[in-house]
Amino acid sequence: MRLAAGLGRANLSTAQADLDLHARDQSHHHPRRGDVVVWPESAQAVADILRIANEHRIPVTAWGVGTSLEGNSIPLYGGILLSFERMNRIIEVHADDFQVTVQPGIGHKDLNAELARYGLFFPPDPGANATVGGMLANNASGIRTVKYGASKDNVLRMQVALADGRLITVGSRSVKQSSGYDLLHLFVGSEGTLGIITEATLKLVPVPTYMSAVLAAFPTVEAAVEAVVAVRGSGLDPAALELIDAAHAVMLNQAEGVNLEPYPTLFMEFHAPHEATLSYGLEMVQEICDELGAVSFRATTDTAERKKLWHARHNSYEIMVRSHPNKQFFIMDVAVPISAYPELIAYIEQIKAERNITAYMVGHAGDGNIHVEFPYADEAEFERAQQADHDIVMRALELGGTATGEHGVGIGKARYMRREHGEALEVMRSIKQLLDPNNILNPGKIFPAVEAVTG
Amino acid sequence: MRLAAGLGRANLSTAQADLDLHARDQSHHHPRRGDVVVWPESAQAVADILRIANEHRIPVTAWGVGTSLEGNSIPLYGGILLSFERMNRIIEVHADDFQVTVQPGIGHKDLNAELARYGLFFPPDPGANATVGGMLANNASGIRTVKYGASKDNVLRMQVALADGRLITVGSRSVKQSSGYDLLHLFVGSEGTLGIITEATLKLVPVPTYMSAVLAAFPTVEAAVEAVVAVRGSGLDPAALELIDAAHAVMLNQAEGVNLEPYPTLFMEFHAPHEATLSYGLEMVQEICDELGAVSFRATTDTAERKKLWHARHNSYEIMVRSHPNKQFFIMDVAVPISAYPELIAYIEQIKAERNITAYMVGHAGDGNIHVEFPYADEAEFERAQQADHDIVMRALELGGTATGEHGVGIGKARYMRREHGEALEVMRSIKQLLDPNNILNPGKIFPAVEAVTG
Repeated sequence: MRLAAGLGRANLSTAQADLDLHARDQSHHHPRRGDVVVWPESAQAVADILRIANEHRIPVTAWGVGTSLEGNSIPLYGGILLSFERMNRIIEVHADDFQVTVQPGIGHKDLNAELARYGLFFPPDPGANATVGGMLANNASGIRTVKYGASKDNVLRMQVALADGRLITVGSRSVKQSSGYDLLHLFVGSEGTLGIITEATLKLVPVPTYMSAVLAAFPTVEAAVEAVVAVRGSGLDPAALELIDAAHAVMLNQAEGVNLEPYPTLFMEFHAPHEATLSYGLEMVQEICDELGAVSFRATTDTAERKKLWHARHNSYEIMVRSHPNKQFFIMDVAVPISAYPELIAYIEQIKAERNITAYMVGHAGDGNIHVEFPYADEAEFERAQQADHDIVMRALELGGTATGEHGVGIGKARYMRREHGEALEVMRSIKQLLDPNNILNPGKIFPAVEAVTG
Repeated sequence: MRLAAGLGRANLSTAQADLDLHARDQSHHHPRRGDVVVWPESAQAVADILRIANEHRIPVTAWGVGTSLEGNSIPLYGGILLSFERMNRIIEVHADDFQVTVQPGIGHKDLNAELARYGLFFPPDPGANATVGGMLANNASGIRTVKYGASKDNVLRMQVALADGRLITVGSRSVKQSSGYDLLHLFVGSEGTLGIITEATLKLVPVPTYMSAVLAAFPTVEAAVEAVVAVRGSGLDPAALELIDAAHAVMLNQAEGVNLEPYPTLFMEFHAPHEATLSYGLEMVQEICDELGAVSFRATTDTAERKKLWHARHNSYEIMVRSHPNKQFFIMDVAVPISAYPELIAYIEQIKAERNITAYMVGHAGDGNIHVEFPYADEAEFERAQQADHDIVMRALELGGTATGEHGVGIGKARYMRREHGEALEVMRSIKQLLDPNNILNPGKIFPAVEAVTG
């Protein structure tokens, strides 16, 4: 087989164990095995694999570390799993340019550990140690997006392998470019369906000299969201602005001893180049929170305490899982304009109450992004969660929001694409057809097979 | 004629005076008259015009106020000039969302005057009162981009009329969206060659409570650029970081009485939510500038003095024109990674010296963006300027930069597209062919007719 000849035996496996390892992501979506896992070691190897796969009409699904949450990296139609495990190098740190060029297989935490030596970091942080390639392909974001943007805002240039085996470069190391069409952002977030990222130059920011953490609890989610709007309007430019609901606060309390009140709670972080900015800023935040009826307010500039609080926030998912030893979890992701956030949250509370569903909310409130986490033990409970998920997505869309703020479309959100994008979906489809006419690149993702939701 | 029937006589003109008014932009490119100017009053009217034009293969060029600098809005092949003069309304201010939805014909200065009531502003500032539609179509930027980004970073959602008359919506009012392909950024910067923007929702930021201005003169451009890198690395997050060369400083001095030293000079601005941040920040900036050998340093938090300094910077072009009463001006735009900025500037100085060319430099140094302004009185002088322009673009590309940081491709930069983008240009071309198969949308722009520069 030409694939084996080109790659060498050591870079390819059809062993069941390897296929199983690359058959599922961290979502509830059913696992599906590919036919072969390959580990290319260069961009040219990736391009060569695509050329061969395209000739033989073999599906190709790119694989980082499988931390996606909508089945984005599950090889729905089998074929080749393209693992970037061996393409995980930093190619060059351009310190004076606040940039780094990397291979796509590097984990963002590993990258940041290395960049700390230069006093720089790559800000998007989806929690898990996702690869940079996976983050870019899914336009991942996370807790720092409110200040620093999503993955798409932190990339300048990429090399991309096209379905026909061409290697192209999109974007520029110049931070400003008004030269031709923005293909960079066409490939970012395309989930490996238009091309496969083989190299990326990322924007970096200086590690802040001073940081603070703030916890503020509010009697209602509405009051908490008013505080979110006021903090953003103050010009204080928070680096994180997170919301957990009362139930989550209680769980974190028990597990991590962080002394949270049993109320909807905002976690905030501020970054500053000098200490005075931080303390003046904290005074302003406290004023805002007090005015909006906060039932408790705690601020710290102590590194250990700040890390403890964020550790609790970061671990909230695992804590929740541990608190429900006999349950599986189904996590959903939507986002709306911030003014619609209280209405969305109220609707979720209403669904929980009316249908007697257990669910937890945790969200990037500063961005209007919410995740609802549903525990389930059996098919019936899963069905109820799925129905709730569907209703929440539809409400988010009615409120001018999106079916996915950061997890991507993958398998789970494909059926909402027509509803969200209308005729623009046909333009997306025509671009897919243009760049991948044989539909070999991550087939079955993004585009609905049957357009279930048109309402 | 169907166009007249659909639009009504009042919304269309073939008068010479109207055609002349829409025949040139602010560049040196030759004027070219269209055949008819139309003033649509709705997105649907724009779509209808495109459908008719597409059926009859009539070129359509969108027109804001003609402030472009690379011939972007000149109707090279005649046809319809689509003026957005009557589509200049604010549709809705979404104050709590820090967003505004506008028609494309509104000037960004007019928009900001209105938004001041809400304590908000749209940050990209290209100097002239360009329309929002023109800014988005050309991905314009300017002095505030170093902090707030270019036009592409400050738009969330657009309605776009396609060549075949379809109206689509791209992007979302949700600030986060990982849903399908990013068509928003495909249309931003496409210079009206893929579709025509009929409505846009923009991101806004709070008007800063405190602002300062800093002037720092350095013995050499190299030292000034070292200060640029140090200021960016400090985490101080300047809102403007501009460079003018020594010759410009002398000119501004005479005309505006701003007491500049005859040296390369940085203009900076800082925004802060409280006064202490500003004063601590200014101390840090002064330390950096002193350490790097600044020959003078002046900081002010006084509004009148700050405005006077920026007035001088903003007027630098007009001051230069007035200082050369018998000359025309040719302005060029390139950008490079900031580490390559000193080398680029040194190259420009070398060209000026070796070829005995008069030229002035003014740049958005924080972004690695430089404009060179060549005065000329006759064909021979113009030829020399053009040759210098070409050599500077080629050097910027060699340095990993771009042929245009903010003016767009238009007519002038088309010949560098193959050199800058390589095979990716073919992907751009195929997307153009997909969305505008009859080449009616601003034909002759972006893509080189003859690929003169392949080197």
